[in-house]
Amino acid sequence: MSQVKVPVVRNILEANERLAKANRTIFDQAGIFAVNLMSSPGAGKTSLLEKTIDGLGDRYRIAVIEGDIQSSYDAERIQRKGVQAVQINTDGACHLDGGMVLEAIEALDLDGLDLLVIENVGNLVCPAEFNLGEHHKVMILSVAEGDDKPLKYPLMFQTSSVLLVNKIDLLPYVDCDLEKIRQRAGQLNPRQQIFEVSCRGGAGLDAWYAWLETEIARVRVNRG
Amino acid sequence: MSQVKVPVVRNILEANERLAKANRTIFDQAGIFAVNLMSSPGAGKTSLLEKTIDGLGDRYRIAVIEGDIQSSYDAERIQRKGVQAVQINTDGACHLDGGMVLEAIEALDLDGLDLLVIENVGNLVCPAEFNLGEHHKVMILSVAEGDDKPLKYPLMFQTSSVLLVNKIDLLPYVDCDLEKIRQRAGQLNPRQQIFEVSCRGGAGLDAWYAWLETEIARVRVNRG
Repeated sequence: MSQVKVPVVRNILEANERLAKANRTIFDQAGIFAVNLMSSPGAGKTSLLEKTIDGLGDRYRIAVIEGDIQSSYDAERIQRKGVQAVQINTDGACHLDGGMVLEAIEALDLDGLDLLVIENVGNLVCPAEFNLGEHHKVMILSVAEGDDKPLKYPLMFQTSSVLLVNKIDLLPYVDCDLEKIRQRAGQLNPRQQIFEVSCRGGAGLDAWYAWLETEIARVRVNRG
Repeated sequence: MSQVKVPVVRNILEANERLAKANRTIFDQAGIFAVNLMSSPGAGKTSLLEKTIDGLGDRYRIAVIEGDIQSSYDAERIQRKGVQAVQINTDGACHLDGGMVLEAIEALDLDGLDLLVIENVGNLVCPAEFNLGEHHKVMILSVAEGDDKPLKYPLMFQTSSVLLVNKIDLLPYVDCDLEKIRQRAGQLNPRQQIFEVSCRGGAGLDAWYAWLETEIARVRVNRG
């Protein structure tokens, strides 16, 4: 079985890489900073997006691509915030790929856009393997998931430039040691920036906004 | 790309089904009740196993197959409880399959075993597609993940006989409506049994133990 499977997976990854590069060219030429946002189900991706629109939406034009197996529940949440949102339904697939994102881009008005966040399917495994053309991968870990996650899902930590440790307001009620997360994630990816946040209360989000503003400015200089 | 991918996935699922049937024959002939335990990362699979061993380990012989992408962290937690544990490392794959479980069974002493729990990779998507030969699929949802999960990951809810809603001790601190979970899960799978539990404090676990005892007795009558 594995002799059948492995070469096919490799072809899919190569085809994906070509589509991701096409997406990246579109983002760079338009001067749009693109983020691939990943986490387990329910770690807080859509809540982070809602807060980010609240925090930066008056100074930057933001759009969101929502990835879900089915439903348009998250895209509707985002549209209620008054920003462009496109829903991708993967129809069973556990991750987004470059081709799905290319189709979604074509449904967006890119003119004057500063920031595009692509919210991946809730899954700590496969999304880490598929580049979408983003400038940075960003991951969220909820403290309710525990401090052992870097040991068990290392690729996600290795490939993400930023780790948002979310729901820190739950720390008094769960068995989770922030220092262990920092140490274990740091061993996998010493350059990863870690922000401790609570999307519910808003704690720690200023550092995340500042990181986004720096990166938006960096990409925007390309705009013609 | 999808024209290349779909037939291969179908072949893999068919091959898996044959191996799952072989596993099921082994379980039935030995009179071992087998559970495929699934959830998002950090919802509490290993904690539930620890509690279950505490609750039933003096009356039943229990063994555990641990599935993880890498590491043997969970199998070590289980072995400290004094029961047989075999670790499967999927080497990147986001779910267990029948062949991996068949190999793991061969490493177990099945003699006199009453209950085998197969802890799948933490993932609310793909594990639901792969039968392992289990008698029942059981899923855990942590209240910290939110009440919208049935809308977004329907297959997992449709295929699981039991839903354990875990971490109910966190309900005062998170935005999660148990009634919405019951209603949304009930629409997908009206026959699914739902137990509200807290593996941390132990609340609600008696109903789960009683369900296991009934199922263990049902399968054990086959034992020669």
